[in-house]
Amino acid sequence: MRVLGVDPGLTRCGLGVVDGGKGRAVRCVAVDVVRTPPDADLAHRLLGISDEVERWMDKYKPAAVAVERVFAQHNVRTAMGTAQAGGVVALAAARRGLPVVFHTPSEVKAAVSGSGRADKAQVTAMVMRLLNLEVAPKPADAADALALAICHLWREPMRARLAEAEARAAEMARTHKARLAAAAKQAKNPGAAR
Amino acid sequence: MRVLGVDPGLTRCGLGVVDGGKGRAVRCVAVDVVRTPPDADLAHRLLGISDEVERWMDKYKPAAVAVERVFAQHNVRTAMGTAQAGGVVALAAARRGLPVVFHTPSEVKAAVSGSGRADKAQVTAMVMRLLNLEVAPKPADAADALALAICHLWREPMRARLAEAEARAAEMARTHKARLAAAAKQAKNPGAAR
Repeated sequence: MRVLGVDPGLTRCGLGVVDGGKGRAVRCVAVDVVRTPPDADLAHRLLGISDEVERWMDKYKPAAVAVERVFAQHNVRTAMGTAQAGGVVALAAARRGLPVVFHTPSEVKAAVSGSGRADKAQVTAMVMRLLNLEVAPKPADAADALALAICHLWREPMRARLAEAEARAAEMARTHKARLAAAAKQAKNPGAAR
Repeated sequence: MRVLGVDPGLTRCGLGVVDGGKGRAVRCVAVDVVRTPPDADLAHRLLGISDEVERWMDKYKPAAVAVERVFAQHNVRTAMGTAQAGGVVALAAARRGLPVVFHTPSEVKAAVSGSGRADKAQVTAMVMRLLNLEVAPKPADAADALALAICHLWREPMRARLAEAEARAAEMARTHKARLAAAAKQAKNPGAAR
């Protein structure tokens, strides 16, 4: 399975394509950073990111897109721009019918380094090791995009199974409730049943 | 000039088209709310909004798009979704070469009611009065979208003139600085000049 990882941002948007193989084997297909000029207006910055991401989707044909989930913890203004960049990426994926999953930074760090609190250097080092890269992808956003794609490849089968199990449990609960309601109605109105 | 006002949101996204006439005359062309199901995934909600906004742009052919500027003041999670909805609207406008301007809620309130702290009821009442509407546009997001379009029609000429004046002033400052630098260089190195 091929995954496009995206570390969204208006100034620098990291893109990384990773192929998953048997077991935990992963291979780097492409990695780069899209930049948009800070003095351009928001709409044109989003357009620049959207166009480039669509170009990557056409060129590399990923089966899924993994985007970093943003939290407005530090700088709210930056977080808004980051959320918007992630939004246009999700939109481009939805237009092509590609599944999009958002992963938190700690999920990504935990997936590649074993610790949700790993620092940038540790994440970059693990990305290099896992993908057999001789040089570190620069800037950090590029390495983060690859880490996101790896995280997705490793987490997704588990996440999908969990979601399926939850859906089954919810369906069983619904059926059970409907039966209870029918039984209660029947007890109240025994004549209505034939 | 025809303006599409957008009060962005994932659950309810207000859309309003207003024509500006001579002076302060304004006319309501269309108003509605796009809803996306809260249990759908983010990418598909954004796609739903984007598709509907593009349909409106094709149908009503506005000359500009006015979007509410979002602040992460109350609920950060909601604000992120709102920012993303606004982002895909800005993207759709940029794809069509339409100018997009973001107005803050207080700019919009001040434009239609004279007070930046007007409440929802006051904004709705003024929107009805200014557009000669017999019934209040519902929900409030629809009225807000119309208020945004009116705000844009009234503010934009002033904003554009101000931006032009600022650009001229910046250009003059640049020219002046360049002359100063040249004079300083000349004073240091009189032989270099011919």
